[in-house]
Amino acid sequence: MLLNRRFLDMKKVNVGVIGLGCRGPSLIKDAILPNDRTKIVAVCDCYEDRVNNQLKFLKEQGNDGTKGYTDYRELLADKNVEAVIISTSWDMHVPIAIAAMKAGKAVGLEVGGAYSVQSCHDLVRTWEETRVPFMFLENCMYDWNETALFNMIDEGLFGTIVAIDGGYMHDLREEVSYGVENRHYRLQNYIKRNCDNYPTHELGPIAHMLGINRGNRMVSLVSVASKACGLHEYILANKPDDTELVNTKFAQGDIVTTIITCAGGETITLRLDTTLPRAYGRGLTIHGTKGMFSENDRVIFLDDVNKSDEYRPTSLWGNFLEFSKKYLNDNWAAVEKGLKVQGHGGMDYFMMKDFIDCVAEGKEPPFDVYDAASWIVISPLTEQSISLGGTPVSIPDFTCGRWVTRR
Amino acid sequence: MLLNRRFLDMKKVNVGVIGLGCRGPSLIKDAILPNDRTKIVAVCDCYEDRVNNQLKFLKEQGNDGTKGYTDYRELLADKNVEAVIISTSWDMHVPIAIAAMKAGKAVGLEVGGAYSVQSCHDLVRTWEETRVPFMFLENCMYDWNETALFNMIDEGLFGTIVAIDGGYMHDLREEVSYGVENRHYRLQNYIKRNCDNYPTHELGPIAHMLGINRGNRMVSLVSVASKACGLHEYILANKPDDTELVNTKFAQGDIVTTIITCAGGETITLRLDTTLPRAYGRGLTIHGTKGMFSENDRVIFLDDVNKSDEYRPTSLWGNFLEFSKKYLNDNWAAVEKGLKVQGHGGMDYFMMKDFIDCVAEGKEPPFDVYDAASWIVISPLTEQSISLGGTPVSIPDFTCGRWVTRR
Repeated sequence: MLLNRRFLDMKKVNVGVIGLGCRGPSLIKDAILPNDRTKIVAVCDCYEDRVNNQLKFLKEQGNDGTKGYTDYRELLADKNVEAVIISTSWDMHVPIAIAAMKAGKAVGLEVGGAYSVQSCHDLVRTWEETRVPFMFLENCMYDWNETALFNMIDEGLFGTIVAIDGGYMHDLREEVSYGVENRHYRLQNYIKRNCDNYPTHELGPIAHMLGINRGNRMVSLVSVASKACGLHEYILANKPDDTELVNTKFAQGDIVTTIITCAGGETITLRLDTTLPRAYGRGLTIHGTKGMFSENDRVIFLDDVNKSDEYRPTSLWGNFLEFSKKYLNDNWAAVEKGLKVQGHGGMDYFMMKDFIDCVAEGKEPPFDVYDAASWIVISPLTEQSISLGGTPVSIPDFTCGRWVTRR
Repeated sequence: MLLNRRFLDMKKVNVGVIGLGCRGPSLIKDAILPNDRTKIVAVCDCYEDRVNNQLKFLKEQGNDGTKGYTDYRELLADKNVEAVIISTSWDMHVPIAIAAMKAGKAVGLEVGGAYSVQSCHDLVRTWEETRVPFMFLENCMYDWNETALFNMIDEGLFGTIVAIDGGYMHDLREEVSYGVENRHYRLQNYIKRNCDNYPTHELGPIAHMLGINRGNRMVSLVSVASKACGLHEYILANKPDDTELVNTKFAQGDIVTTIITCAGGETITLRLDTTLPRAYGRGLTIHGTKGMFSENDRVIFLDDVNKSDEYRPTSLWGNFLEFSKKYLNDNWAAVEKGLKVQGHGGMDYFMMKDFIDCVAEGKEPPFDVYDAASWIVISPLTEQSISLGGTPVSIPDFTCGRWVTRR
């Protein structure tokens, strides 16, 4: 057992939640309060009104005695807090995670890209020194499609996997444009940075499918961004009187495409597409020697089974949902049998359950600090490659070679 | 009129077809014979049996007096031939096109990537010296989706276009693996080269949408290939007794991803996917500030119209076919009214009609030698970038600056 021995055989885990914008409250409501093994003992946000609103809500829910903080360092000094959930603005994720680990707290870190390569090394090094339970809270590791596909891949349904594509494709123009009104950090990010700022929803599941940090690793990437037009045109049409925003130039390209090469010879293609009109999607597409899956087409195409449909991809529309039912994990099998869960359809609940169980039982989390570092480092690396006209940049090996033999 | 003055007010065009493997005969049957303005006066292939079969077929169809050749130079010396269709193996496309132009023949050049950057410059220079009618026979410029989308883009339906994706995604494992038996050139290409060997089916329409060579140009690209597993595993399963092929190592990566940056700031993402199981598709996806189109989803998503469907991309399945009927060009409007045409659903027929009309009337062809060169040069450039680990390479400007003002 390599983990910090403080975390063993806990009946309840006393949780502190840092960051009460949008994600923190939704996690509290859908994933932490419904979990029998947790008690929320502290909440924190730099805006006092958010703290007060959340304390009020918690009291209404019967979760009494919660302390409120506006400085995360005070929450971390609270001896009653055993685990923290970090759901702040992206730029504070790593600094708070490091401070929390140093304070001996278990850490559940929400998603979002990093800002520098060095910060990812710091995150890993701090974990290696403290060995507190650390889990990266990537909820898309827990969704129906992804978990069923994990099982299909394990059973060899796709043969040898040679390439996987995915993206974060979500029209955020309203959210970004109203960043001042809503105190949302995305606005300044889109003004100042040009990178894949949010890669982990698609990359997490893809990395798991390819055994990244467990027999495989990401070696290098190239990244290219289109021009930035979407936000400016949206603001002209929807906030014409906001003179400052109308005259703001956005650095963030509308479409960012990144190609990662893995040690095993596989390629991963990522897409950020958040400032143009579109339907939501993660575009997961698996290319194997015996079959392919495409979230866009909702098609699973398998040699022998589907060969005669070569020119009729639409004929299989809708078949994945039925097909996948044979491959559900225990969580989704329980939902199929009537279990009611919330939070993005249930994946938030299942993710939090895994984290709390790991903390309480002193178990290795399924997605650890090496996964976190190798997924979030993609943001600063794409920034580098884009700024160098698509030049390949190397991806650090945060395991220092242990990926070769790690399971 | 910049064109060679020999080609004016012709009643009929005497055509010679060079290359009688698979594509030549299908063009003859579906696109040249049904065209009232053509007479096939000569055919050529290096395999005599193909020539004889085709002469027999032409005679049966009432096209008498056709001459047969096994050396294209003899066909080019035939004074009776006014225009040639070049549908040979890819490697002979440019050499034969150059020889044909020098012989004063109009040239219709079939698709396929180039083998060197210099050959593309040679193609352009030869045309500039001879000025015979030259058209690149990219049939996908004539398909239903693409032509309707050209009209939608012209009407501003998608707003400012910032990125377009496309691919040649076609399971060719059987064709490649039986290359010896079928005398097909793809086999040796897949053994020896690693590049996007067939980029124009998707790139042609995309380049047209982005005004490439007409106010815009492609500036640079990066390209990355996955490992090559698909053909080897297919051969192990389907031709286990072909010892030579079982032991053959293929250079061609299964999935090749290329990102092109344009002078206007747009990006083009191309995909070659020809050695893995999948349904056929060209994956055309248009990203604009007012809307997006996705061939995979069969979705057209427009601001205002579709905003409420943000989380239900499937709800619009099938809507593009109906929607597109308002935007059909004359060709497809005629098909809707009952016109019967053949050749990949009609696009071959319409393409050939355009070529023959241009030759007969001495008109500028819609897709000219500058288009041809800038589309087929992508193959050797991706080969360079892949071999350099995804390093950006610059794309030549074959117009020597005239793209700035060309219409």
